[in-house]
Amino acid sequence: MHHVYFWLKKPITSEIRIKFENGMNELTTIETIVGKHLGTPATTDRGVIDSSYSYSLLLTFENKEDQDIYQTHPTHLRFIDEYEDLWEKVVVYDSVSF
Amino acid sequence: MHHVYFWLKKPITSEIRIKFENGMNELTTIETIVGKHLGTPATTDRGVIDSSYSYSLLLTFENKEDQDIYQTHPTHLRFIDEYEDLWEKVVVYDSVSF
Repeated sequence: MHHVYFWLKKPITSEIRIKFENGMNELTTIETIVGKHLGTPATTDRGVIDSSYSYSLLLTFENKEDQDIYQTHPTHLRFIDEYEDLWEKVVVYDSVSF
Repeated sequence: MHHVYFWLKKPITSEIRIKFENGMNELTTIETIVGKHLGTPATTDRGVIDSSYSYSLLLTFENKEDQDIYQTHPTHLRFIDEYEDLWEKVVVYDSVSF
């Protein structure tokens, strides 16, 4: 399970949103992805909740090999190349079931 | 989509792990949960990856009302009451599809 949070540079215009969402949609066509959730912060609001990020990208893979294919896939590399100027921070949490 | 990351206080013994994992398993029997993933950090290692957390808890709900039921459910309140001494930090990311 691969969960990525993106903090985009401000101001985040609706043009930038459309562009970035198109990018995420294209990115997640990579064929080794078996589950995905593309999101933005919910309106929940409690002390422990971090809603400062701009976009959330949750991906699941069948196994580590499939995630490795994703990491070096041309579509992924193109996504980074085309969109990395839009974000100021990215945090990734990879986890495995216990 | 409700993703919670727990940083347990160190040292994290195997007894504490068993106790906390049992707690997470009990917590996630709450009936409004439709999807769940209980995890620990993967062994992936790149600059953007945060693998400093101890446990990851991903929950999905059918709708906001079902998440609200979870938040105030006796099993959830008991989990917090019984285990909050074990963690030093919790970060929650709630997100909705775009």
